[in-house]
Amino acid sequence: MSDIRQQLLTAGSRARAASRALATCTERAKNAALIAAAEQIESAAADILAANRADLDRGAVSGLSQALLDRLRLDDKRLAAISRSLREVALLPDPVGQLIREWSRPDGLRFKKVRVPIGIIGIIYESRPNVTSDAASLCVKTGNAVLLRGGSEALHSNIALAEALRTGCRQAGVPEDAVQILTSTDREAVRLMAEMSEFIDLIIPRGGKALIETVSSHARMPVIKHFDGVCHIYVDRTADLKMAESILINAKCQRPSVCNAAETLLVHSEIADSFLSRCGPELKRRGVELRGDKRTQEILGPEIVPATEEDWRTEYLDLILSIRVVQSLDEGIAHVEEYGSHHSDTIVTADAAAASEFLNKVDSAAVFWNASTRFNDGGEFGFGAEIGISTDRLHARGPMGLEELTTYKYQVIGQGHVRE
Amino acid sequence: MSDIRQQLLTAGSRARAASRALATCTERAKNAALIAAAEQIESAAADILAANRADLDRGAVSGLSQALLDRLRLDDKRLAAISRSLREVALLPDPVGQLIREWSRPDGLRFKKVRVPIGIIGIIYESRPNVTSDAASLCVKTGNAVLLRGGSEALHSNIALAEALRTGCRQAGVPEDAVQILTSTDREAVRLMAEMSEFIDLIIPRGGKALIETVSSHARMPVIKHFDGVCHIYVDRTADLKMAESILINAKCQRPSVCNAAETLLVHSEIADSFLSRCGPELKRRGVELRGDKRTQEILGPEIVPATEEDWRTEYLDLILSIRVVQSLDEGIAHVEEYGSHHSDTIVTADAAAASEFLNKVDSAAVFWNASTRFNDGGEFGFGAEIGISTDRLHARGPMGLEELTTYKYQVIGQGHVRE
Repeated sequence: MSDIRQQLLTAGSRARAASRALATCTERAKNAALIAAAEQIESAAADILAANRADLDRGAVSGLSQALLDRLRLDDKRLAAISRSLREVALLPDPVGQLIREWSRPDGLRFKKVRVPIGIIGIIYESRPNVTSDAASLCVKTGNAVLLRGGSEALHSNIALAEALRTGCRQAGVPEDAVQILTSTDREAVRLMAEMSEFIDLIIPRGGKALIETVSSHARMPVIKHFDGVCHIYVDRTADLKMAESILINAKCQRPSVCNAAETLLVHSEIADSFLSRCGPELKRRGVELRGDKRTQEILGPEIVPATEEDWRTEYLDLILSIRVVQSLDEGIAHVEEYGSHHSDTIVTADAAAASEFLNKVDSAAVFWNASTRFNDGGEFGFGAEIGISTDRLHARGPMGLEELTTYKYQVIGQGHVRE
Repeated sequence: MSDIRQQLLTAGSRARAASRALATCTERAKNAALIAAAEQIESAAADILAANRADLDRGAVSGLSQALLDRLRLDDKRLAAISRSLREVALLPDPVGQLIREWSRPDGLRFKKVRVPIGIIGIIYESRPNVTSDAASLCVKTGNAVLLRGGSEALHSNIALAEALRTGCRQAGVPEDAVQILTSTDREAVRLMAEMSEFIDLIIPRGGKALIETVSSHARMPVIKHFDGVCHIYVDRTADLKMAESILINAKCQRPSVCNAAETLLVHSEIADSFLSRCGPELKRRGVELRGDKRTQEILGPEIVPATEEDWRTEYLDLILSIRVVQSLDEGIAHVEEYGSHHSDTIVTADAAAASEFLNKVDSAAVFWNASTRFNDGGEFGFGAEIGISTDRLHARGPMGLEELTTYKYQVIGQGHVRE
């Protein structure tokens, strides 16, 4: 057996034992573990920063870009944010044990549908070390053991942060193997993890297309992908144009590199002239490259790059916006359904009937009326914390908070009931 | 491209178009389709029975067992049950569009979590033709298009039943491609279906281990398996022994071939003598082969077959019961967790604290206190209908009724909200 496989199996069986114990840990113990972990991060700050320094040095030598080095970098401020976030998770309500529904049958049998942990969650991610503590804290809070496999460039930082979490667990009497880092940075490890269905109950890949593809094609357990957002702003003919501009600018420019940023603007033909003339210059002023259909070019001038079929399907994650003028609400909805990724889509309109049609017919995780797509986020939804935004349809769709890290079981109470 | 692949892609793209239309069909239209299908089954009974006759004749020639031929056989009574079941599904409440939760944020943003169809569901099953109409009707009711791939031995029967469903849809203005039978009975078709993630949003394999294994290892979309039940009856030291016996006999003997039948009896040592002496003869009288640990052999005599490690993990689906005497509730729970399949497990006890510990610590889809494991069933839960019993942990666990055939989306309503 390969060393990698052996390491994974050992980690898996430790995680299984930890998960069984963790499933019945009290809320108090789990919260104490998170608070102890926060304290540990504060008291071991020098060690964690030294580990991070080692990653940064290696990264600089191996030629990581400035952007990547910046994502990798920890400092006092970022560490403080990490420990603050642990304390915040400790304050959130624990979903485990919550009664989802309760009913009785005419024969007197009583049913309870109760939230329970999922079991063991495998998370595969890239670069930013804070994902280690964020993901681990949400899993511990929800009674799940977690197997973390971060990017190789952040290995020392991830180990140091996970060690703080493990220390916190130990101090609170929660099994430390609830949090484990897989240190093999071999690509093979991802494939092996995806096949380990006896030890991983849910696998969450967070990263680029190649990673998602590897995990999806090998996984023998449920996968919840955190993938792409080709998000739309549709400006209807009755839209308040000032509101539409402000939503568009927010959705496109506030943070263009994230999945809930807008990539495509659809404009109703009746207001296309006035709206595009209004927002075009502002978008350009903000450095947004515009790619448009023929009508857009007619309105905004020939310097607009023609949008290709490919553009409508592209998640730019950058200051680029594709623009299309549509003849009707139906055409707008059809475009979103055909080219979108079912992530986050907005209609701006003053017409409640049009809004209702868009909200019902657009099949996306979150559909918005008169609000920016950027609100598709666990924090903005009021979930307190999120492990990411699911682009899958089942179990969790959209922001994945604490509840989405649980499943359920039925408890059924009889008085000697047998089936006829 | 292979013919099979071409057939699947054609069916998939038809299903996608149908699923989009179906998602916004009214409850009235969907119910009308089901009632028209029931009428169609009644008026086309002769054709359906002739198709079934053809399957039976082929099956007899190819040497199908009497048991399989019986599962395959349709007659007036079974057809009447099928059309009655369609009418019953029409009467159930439609979960699509139901408001799951609604809330507002301090900034005034309003959130609605709303049930929507899953999209396209692929179902792979064996032998019994009534699965065709049952599965199709539940999918149509919940706004999902369905791709059905039944066993080759039932091909003509399945086509005839699906045609009745399609006719019903057409008559009610619901897209007929909501229901499609994949006629390729090649094994290759199963693998190709499992890879078709662009056209299937959820795949449900119902069948033996080989089928489940093929689907799980190739699937690139969520899989919900309907697999094995290694179910336990644990008789605690304070159990009412008469009640325990009646539950045990029901769970083991009422229908031994189904997944929620009991396979293993665990008995607390303090009452082992009296309970085993009481129920042993009755089990033998009913033809149940007993396999026991040493203590069981001491109590029931040396003719008891010794239970092996393998026995504890085996789903007999037959009149065989493995028996183990345990020293404590903890040991009983540990056995269930170690050897069970997390399907359905019962504690019989008069001690509420022991029951509560069992209900909380046993991590099965359904855990019972003083009731037979046979109640793990959509009908018994009051779901009205079920597509099966999920042995997976995510999205649907235990009985899968109409709600479990839906997912959700968020509708978010602002007044020009942008993110800071």
